[in-house]
Amino acid sequence: MDGEIRQNKATKEWVIYAPGRGKRPSDFRSSEDKRLDLPQHDPECPFCPGNEEMLPPIIMETPGPNGGWLNRVVPNKYPALSPEGNNSRYEVGPYLAMKGYGRHEVIIESPRHDVQIADMPVAEVEQLIETYHKRHLDLLNGQKNMLTLIFRNHGFQAGTSLIHPHSQIIVTGMVPAYIRWREEAAQAYFDEFGRCVYCEMIDFERKDGQRVILENETCIAFVPFAAEVPFETWLLPKRHQACFRQISDAEKGDMAAALQEVLARLRDKLNDPDYNYIINSAAQFKEGEPHLHWYLQIRPRLTTRAGFEIGSGISINPSVPEKDAAFLRAD
Amino acid sequence: MDGEIRQNKATKEWVIYAPGRGKRPSDFRSSEDKRLDLPQHDPECPFCPGNEEMLPPIIMETPGPNGGWLNRVVPNKYPALSPEGNNSRYEVGPYLAMKGYGRHEVIIESPRHDVQIADMPVAEVEQLIETYHKRHLDLLNGQKNMLTLIFRNHGFQAGTSLIHPHSQIIVTGMVPAYIRWREEAAQAYFDEFGRCVYCEMIDFERKDGQRVILENETCIAFVPFAAEVPFETWLLPKRHQACFRQISDAEKGDMAAALQEVLARLRDKLNDPDYNYIINSAAQFKEGEPHLHWYLQIRPRLTTRAGFEIGSGISINPSVPEKDAAFLRAD
Repeated sequence: MDGEIRQNKATKEWVIYAPGRGKRPSDFRSSEDKRLDLPQHDPECPFCPGNEEMLPPIIMETPGPNGGWLNRVVPNKYPALSPEGNNSRYEVGPYLAMKGYGRHEVIIESPRHDVQIADMPVAEVEQLIETYHKRHLDLLNGQKNMLTLIFRNHGFQAGTSLIHPHSQIIVTGMVPAYIRWREEAAQAYFDEFGRCVYCEMIDFERKDGQRVILENETCIAFVPFAAEVPFETWLLPKRHQACFRQISDAEKGDMAAALQEVLARLRDKLNDPDYNYIINSAAQFKEGEPHLHWYLQIRPRLTTRAGFEIGSGISINPSVPEKDAAFLRAD
Repeated sequence: MDGEIRQNKATKEWVIYAPGRGKRPSDFRSSEDKRLDLPQHDPECPFCPGNEEMLPPIIMETPGPNGGWLNRVVPNKYPALSPEGNNSRYEVGPYLAMKGYGRHEVIIESPRHDVQIADMPVAEVEQLIETYHKRHLDLLNGQKNMLTLIFRNHGFQAGTSLIHPHSQIIVTGMVPAYIRWREEAAQAYFDEFGRCVYCEMIDFERKDGQRVILENETCIAFVPFAAEVPFETWLLPKRHQACFRQISDAEKGDMAAALQEVLARLRDKLNDPDYNYIINSAAQFKEGEPHLHWYLQIRPRLTTRAGFEIGSGISINPSVPEKDAAFLRAD
C-alpha cells in the first residue's frame, strides 16, 4: 500500500495513509521509560486507600478481599459539569447556551497506585467492566442525561493529570453534533443496505483476517480499515447491540479478557505508550436502533494532530492498519 | 459565568466551559522559554538560503531586496499526498478507498531561520498572504482539487518538525465529511434566517464588543463565543465571501496587519505559545455560496484533547472567551 486514502465505512470520514515516510511498526516504540518505579501506595494521592478525606463522598464500591475494595466510583472533584441546574437552552444575542448541567465521575480502578489494566488479572478487569455497566445503567435513568461517555486517559500525553489508575464518566445534557452526524451516516447505510454497518465490518474482518488482533467467543479486536492513528484498535461485541447497557454477563468476561490482552500487547510491544480509550455507545433513546453498535476504541498517542487535521477533520496516519495488526498479533 | 455550555452558531457544535478550575488568562502563560537564541541561518536547515539542493524544485518565489527572496513555495519533500494518480474510488471488501491523490506544498515564509510572523513587518506578512492567495487560485484550477487547506503549525506541540518559519498547503481529491457537515449546518441557518451566519456573528460581535480583540477597515479579530480552546481567535473579512480566493488587495493588507498584531500579542502575553492556524475556506464549487464565509482560525496549543473530546466531539475549555479577549485586547 502506498499513499492510499480510506473511508471509515460507518462515519464516511476519510483517513490519509502516508507510509512513504518509512516507519515500521517498531519505530513507534517509545524510547522513554515511563511509569517505572511507581510506589504501590502514594500518601499524596487522593485515589490511594487511606486518603478518602481528599475525595468527595463515594458513589459505589466493589468489595475486594480482606474487607478491601477492587474499584470505586467518586464524583470528580473538579467536574467539567455539575448535576445541579438543568439543560434548558437560553439565548445570548444570536447564540445558544445552557448551564453546565451534567455529571462527571471518576472510576478508581484499583487500590494500588502502580498497576494498569494491562497488569490486572482478567477477573479484576471484568469487575471494572461490571462497574462501568452499573454506572451506565444508573446514569441513563435520568431523562436529561442525553449522552453517557466512559473513557480512560492513560499518561500525560493522553490528557491525564493523575497517575493512579482511573477511568472517567461524563454525562451531558445534550447530544453533540458530532454524535448526530455519526448516527446519520450509520442510519443512511442501514437504510440503503438493510444491515448494521458495524455487523457488516465484523463479518468482513473475521473473513479477511488481516486486521484482526484477537477474537474470543463473543468479542473481536481489530485495527479498523480506516484507523485514524497508528495501532488504533476497536473491540466490539459480535452480537448486535447499540448500547453498552445491553452487554451480557458472558460478554463482559470476554470483553475484559480481550481488553486486558490488547493493552498488555501495546504495553509490551510499544513500551507502554500513552493512550485514550472510549466506549462509543448509543445516545439516550437510541439503544434500540438497528444501525448503531457500541465499541471500545483504543487510540495510542503516538502522533500529533496538527493544522490539517483540525481544519479538515481528515487524519493522516503514518502507519498501515494491516502492518499494525500483524505486529500486535505476533508472539 | 460558571459552568456554561455554548453552541458554535455556525456548526451547531457545543463547548463546555469549566472556569471553576480557577485559571486566570495569565496562568496559561508558558514558563518555558522556547525558540530563543536561534541562529539567523542554520546550515542544516533545508529551508535556509544556500541549501536549495536539499529541496524539491521551487514552485514560486516572491522577490525580495538585493536579489534575494521574501518567501517561496516548494513541494513537501515527504508529502502526505501526491499529484500523480487520480481520485477514483475503488472497493476493498465492503470499504471504499482511493489512491493518495492530492498536493502538499510548503510555503517558506522568510529566508531567515529565526523570525516568526509576529516579528515580521506587516508588508512581509502581506506578501505571505499574497503568496497564499496565488497558490490558492492556482490549485483551485484542478477539477480534482476538491479542498484546498492552508495551515501553519507553530512549535513542536502543534505538530511541526522544522523550526524555520513555514506554512503548508494540502489539496485533497475529496471533500471530507467534516466539511460537508459544517456546510450543511451553515446552509440550514441560511435557509431558516436568510442570512450568512458568519455575517450575523460579525455584526453581533462588533455591537457587543466583549470578545473583539481588534478591528480595522475590512477585517475583524475576535475570540468566538464558543471558542474550543483558550485564546482561540478568528480573523474574518467583514465583507461576505465564501472562499479565500475572493479576498481583495485591500483586504490582504488589513488581514496581514490583524494577523501580525494578534500573533504578536499571543507571543508577548503568553510567552510564545505553540499554535496552529488554518484558513477555513469553501470547498471546490462552493465559492459562490451565500451561507459560507472564510476565516483564519488561530488555535493556541495550551490544553490536551483527551478521551472525552475524542469520543464526543465536544471541547472542554478551561478558560472564558470574554476574559481571553480582554487579556489580548489590553495594552
